[in-house]
Amino acid sequence: MREHYHVQLGTLADMCDEAATALDKTTRALLDSDLRLAEETITDDIKIDDIRAGVEEQAFALLALQAPVATDLRIVVSAIHAAGDIERMGDLALHIARAARRRHPQPVLPDDITPYFAKMGRIGVALARKAGEVIRSRDLAAAAELETDDDAMDALHQHMFTVLMAPHWTHSVAAAVDATLLARYYERYADHAVAVARHTIYLITGQMPSPLAS
Amino acid sequence: MREHYHVQLGTLADMCDEAATALDKTTRALLDSDLRLAEETITDDIKIDDIRAGVEEQAFALLALQAPVATDLRIVVSAIHAAGDIERMGDLALHIARAARRRHPQPVLPDDITPYFAKMGRIGVALARKAGEVIRSRDLAAAAELETDDDAMDALHQHMFTVLMAPHWTHSVAAAVDATLLARYYERYADHAVAVARHTIYLITGQMPSPLAS
Repeated sequence: MREHYHVQLGTLADMCDEAATALDKTTRALLDSDLRLAEETITDDIKIDDIRAGVEEQAFALLALQAPVATDLRIVVSAIHAAGDIERMGDLALHIARAARRRHPQPVLPDDITPYFAKMGRIGVALARKAGEVIRSRDLAAAAELETDDDAMDALHQHMFTVLMAPHWTHSVAAAVDATLLARYYERYADHAVAVARHTIYLITGQMPSPLAS
Repeated sequence: MREHYHVQLGTLADMCDEAATALDKTTRALLDSDLRLAEETITDDIKIDDIRAGVEEQAFALLALQAPVATDLRIVVSAIHAAGDIERMGDLALHIARAARRRHPQPVLPDDITPYFAKMGRIGVALARKAGEVIRSRDLAAAAELETDDDAMDALHQHMFTVLMAPHWTHSVAAAVDATLLARYYERYADHAVAVARHTIYLITGQMPSPLAS
């Protein structure tokens, strides 16, 4: 019986890898104005949605048929939560891809701010991969690290506003609006990866770590 | 035994009302640069967080002790999802309040775009209240209506971008950045209210309505 629960965790970990791949692709689409990669991210999002639907169905079946308790029950409840977060990570990657497609063949972002987005992309991908590893290893220390890793994303996100609002911003208002939303998508993506790690901590310890700043 | 499940639904409906009140307050704080109302929204968010924690705990206890099946199980699973959505609605109201506080005593928004936000506020509050009613009444037709009601929010959100990106935008880039994020918070708030209605549809019918555009 316990095997079902391990399978479910494996699926979630794979789902994190899919979300990491989506963010990696969409970041390249954004930075290189690559329409093919943008389209690919948009099409592939359905895969992540399907995995989520599968996780939900399996969770429901396990609850109904096995009536799990203790750790097994925590696995199922955490899986329901984590699958929701990872699906949202996919959606956010999709939003970035849509922005790239909407402005194609023009780049969405002015050249001087692309390095920030390259960095946000790298941090986001690393967070998603680490969330997947944490689900596989159930390594508490590594799970707790995601919260600190996310500080780098928050710092970049804050810094973007300083850049956008500075009097020497020489680009259009439209470019600032696009950059604002894109930075927000990356920041939220990272928040959801941290949430996945928090659900994993709950799964292992039975305790939710202290509340996230909302 | 079924009483527990009804209590849980009642709590969720009340939680929707709290989220509606939060959005109403924060919208007034935003439009009137009212620091007291902004502070109140920020302080009160903990109430919504606490209700969510209570719903989660109760859901876990019901799953572990009662091993519900069929409708009862759907109530518990839906409650877990809906509580997450409503908590997020509270967080988004909080973000709006923080923006109002950050710029105080200056208004966050230029006068000419405040009517859009007044309207987004009204639509958001109405959606949250309707989501609460739908949980109480389990009225399928009303639940399905939220999706259509949300179209008005999406249209306003889209229109905001047209306004912000128009060549005759005469305000600062900073004001456009603030307005972009605020409009996004309202739009996401509405999406979560729709999600609550969708979980209610699932609870009643056992079927999730066709996927939301992500």
